[in-house]
Amino acid sequence: MNKINIGLIGYGNVGQGVVKLLKKRRNFVKAKYDAEFILKTLCDRSVHKKDTKDLEKTLLTTSYNDVLNDPEIKVVIELIGGLNPAREIVTKALQQGKHVITANKELIANHGKELFPLARQHNAYLYFESCVGAGIPIISTITQGMAGNKFNALYGIINGTCNFILTKMTQDNLSFAQALEEAQRLGFAEKDPTLDINGMDSTHKLAILAYLTFGKFLDVKNIYTEGISHISHDDIEYAESLGLTIKLLGIAKRVNEEIEVRVHPTLFSKEHPLASINNVYNAIFLNADPLGNILISGEGAGQMSAAIGVFGDLINLSSRGDKEQLLCNYFTEDEKLLVRSSENFRTKFYLRFTASDKPGVLSQITGILGKYNIGINSVTQKAHNPMASVPVIMLTDYTVDHSLREALAEIHKLPVVKAKTVAIRMEKLW
Amino acid sequence: MNKINIGLIGYGNVGQGVVKLLKKRRNFVKAKYDAEFILKTLCDRSVHKKDTKDLEKTLLTTSYNDVLNDPEIKVVIELIGGLNPAREIVTKALQQGKHVITANKELIANHGKELFPLARQHNAYLYFESCVGAGIPIISTITQGMAGNKFNALYGIINGTCNFILTKMTQDNLSFAQALEEAQRLGFAEKDPTLDINGMDSTHKLAILAYLTFGKFLDVKNIYTEGISHISHDDIEYAESLGLTIKLLGIAKRVNEEIEVRVHPTLFSKEHPLASINNVYNAIFLNADPLGNILISGEGAGQMSAAIGVFGDLINLSSRGDKEQLLCNYFTEDEKLLVRSSENFRTKFYLRFTASDKPGVLSQITGILGKYNIGINSVTQKAHNPMASVPVIMLTDYTVDHSLREALAEIHKLPVVKAKTVAIRMEKLW
Repeated sequence: MNKINIGLIGYGNVGQGVVKLLKKRRNFVKAKYDAEFILKTLCDRSVHKKDTKDLEKTLLTTSYNDVLNDPEIKVVIELIGGLNPAREIVTKALQQGKHVITANKELIANHGKELFPLARQHNAYLYFESCVGAGIPIISTITQGMAGNKFNALYGIINGTCNFILTKMTQDNLSFAQALEEAQRLGFAEKDPTLDINGMDSTHKLAILAYLTFGKFLDVKNIYTEGISHISHDDIEYAESLGLTIKLLGIAKRVNEEIEVRVHPTLFSKEHPLASINNVYNAIFLNADPLGNILISGEGAGQMSAAIGVFGDLINLSSRGDKEQLLCNYFTEDEKLLVRSSENFRTKFYLRFTASDKPGVLSQITGILGKYNIGINSVTQKAHNPMASVPVIMLTDYTVDHSLREALAEIHKLPVVKAKTVAIRMEKLW
Repeated sequence: MNKINIGLIGYGNVGQGVVKLLKKRRNFVKAKYDAEFILKTLCDRSVHKKDTKDLEKTLLTTSYNDVLNDPEIKVVIELIGGLNPAREIVTKALQQGKHVITANKELIANHGKELFPLARQHNAYLYFESCVGAGIPIISTITQGMAGNKFNALYGIINGTCNFILTKMTQDNLSFAQALEEAQRLGFAEKDPTLDINGMDSTHKLAILAYLTFGKFLDVKNIYTEGISHISHDDIEYAESLGLTIKLLGIAKRVNEEIEVRVHPTLFSKEHPLASINNVYNAIFLNADPLGNILISGEGAGQMSAAIGVFGDLINLSSRGDKEQLLCNYFTEDEKLLVRSSENFRTKFYLRFTASDKPGVLSQITGILGKYNIGINSVTQKAHNPMASVPVIMLTDYTVDHSLREALAEIHKLPVVKAKTVAIRMEKLW
């Protein structure tokens, strides 16, 4: 029997889920995994306000040093989130050779580059399955299940809130604002949903995934990120009529000797498997050599989904020896691989102009696009109304970002153009 | 640097793929995984007829004892397939504390029950990712990625040949025979496709999956298995018109205190994610507590897909210590869980009768079904032709297998019934 003393720091939603599992699955873990997890210390800054009546033999504390300074604690579970003091806690734990399990995507995205080597140096494990897609086994699939493959591309639907909003806009004809309200009502969006809908939550996760697939740790601030709040129901309708769907994707792909890493709403074919990942489901689609295409999807939200990811890390950790080589697959950085800067991204675009419905408008817009060498594959103008502005939809050929930005800036100065142009990238997925 | 001497037994299609990877990914493995794999001995009963010019320092032999008796060989890769002498090879290797990697699903399905404890007893690892879905990380997802979950149900499309045939019948209106021919022409079906189309290949894989999810090793001979050769294009058309699709599924699910384990063509909703897994793609859909629904799919066929599964096992093995606890999750059997015998399966059925187009036929058939308490949800008769037999389609309510078998036997004796009735199970997937 493998007995492991645990210190848990952060008794919020996920932490309470982990404690539930430690209790409920005690016999299951003994029988199936020959392990016993003992919650020795529980630390939370307001632990005395919380329900801890089931935790008789557990030391309750508000000081994380009670965990870090206890030589009997072998595994530290960090569930407080945010960069500080999480960074200090995880760093000190690893330095003492304690294993760490964390669900803190912001921490790993920002400081994985220093924490992974630190873990290695001190013969400690750093597990973090719940950082992406909660308990959906995405991290372990990439690092272990697909070990030995070289990755060509990764496309991820990794924010359940955005996916829910876009699904509702598509299926129930809701506006962005209505869909967001519905998401909040159902508990799928926070009261302050900024980090979800501006894309940054996806960017944190994508930074981790880009490292695992391409061995490159990017500065989160440098990852091109676009949210979904400018998407209108019109855009979704046009997309539908073109056989396309709009999803917020995290993308990391190799293009020759460079990788492109970006988060943005993306138009792609309704036939692609990712198009049918709806509501709060998350999914990762990978293309790898030689394995080809792999899709993994599941319900990546909620207390117990995140908690089981942490609990699964604990079980995997318990099956490993103390002095063996560390978990493979995410401790080296590929120095030679370059990261393409966003002005050089090359995609097709969906453009929605809001323009006066007057003769000559189209020729003014297309004239400027032509000047910047942007080919146009199709033009649609839905309704004529000489009294008002109307949307004009264009699909471009492949163009580099900086050309499009310059062309749109010039088009924006035209008196006939009445609002900011919406530009959504189109992607041909693997 | 972790140097590991390997003995590879079986230099067929997959073995050659593994050797290619050992050569091509040598530097990649050093840089990324800090490991070096040395192919010390290659055994094949006709090794001298094969292309081995790149294997300078490798001992070529026709005797597997040259691998088993070499104390420097730490890992044995068994790729000969079949039960004998594979069972003897794997047994002897494990008894000597050598780690084993195998892609032999027949061996694990039939003898896993003795081999897993043997591995444990001798502190050896037994890896077998390529046994199900080739390199698609199904085994590792269930055993490691989803560790700590309790499984409720598993539905798998785990035979690429059958999935290709049913896809072609559905999308290109081919008959079963035409679709099989197409599969053979494209190399997706063997010259003798018996084990694929009679379902037994899926049964071997399902036996392994049932063990991993429910901790129950079933005798392969006792697993209810039905192939796809009786499916007609008519059945697919009727299914389509009802919003259903037909796939060969491997199913293992918990029903109260029992599990049902079966392989058969299955009618289910076109809206379910498994319905869009087409051609030679494989997929596993799992429902687990607390994680909910998980889907993993990919291209589970071909030399390199199987080879990368073996290669990934090797990398995972290399990251583990010698004396640590064994891979978690598949070494205990749940004694209390009962396996439901096939006569007690309870499903809805699609029935296609071939009957004379005469008044009173329907009432004779439905009379017998009623006698056995089989409710009917819908009846369709496509065309009237008093001169010939016509198909009559019925969808039943839930019924137990033995009732249906008895009713069909009685119906078969009716003079108006002109051919064997086709019965396909309908399943409401999670």
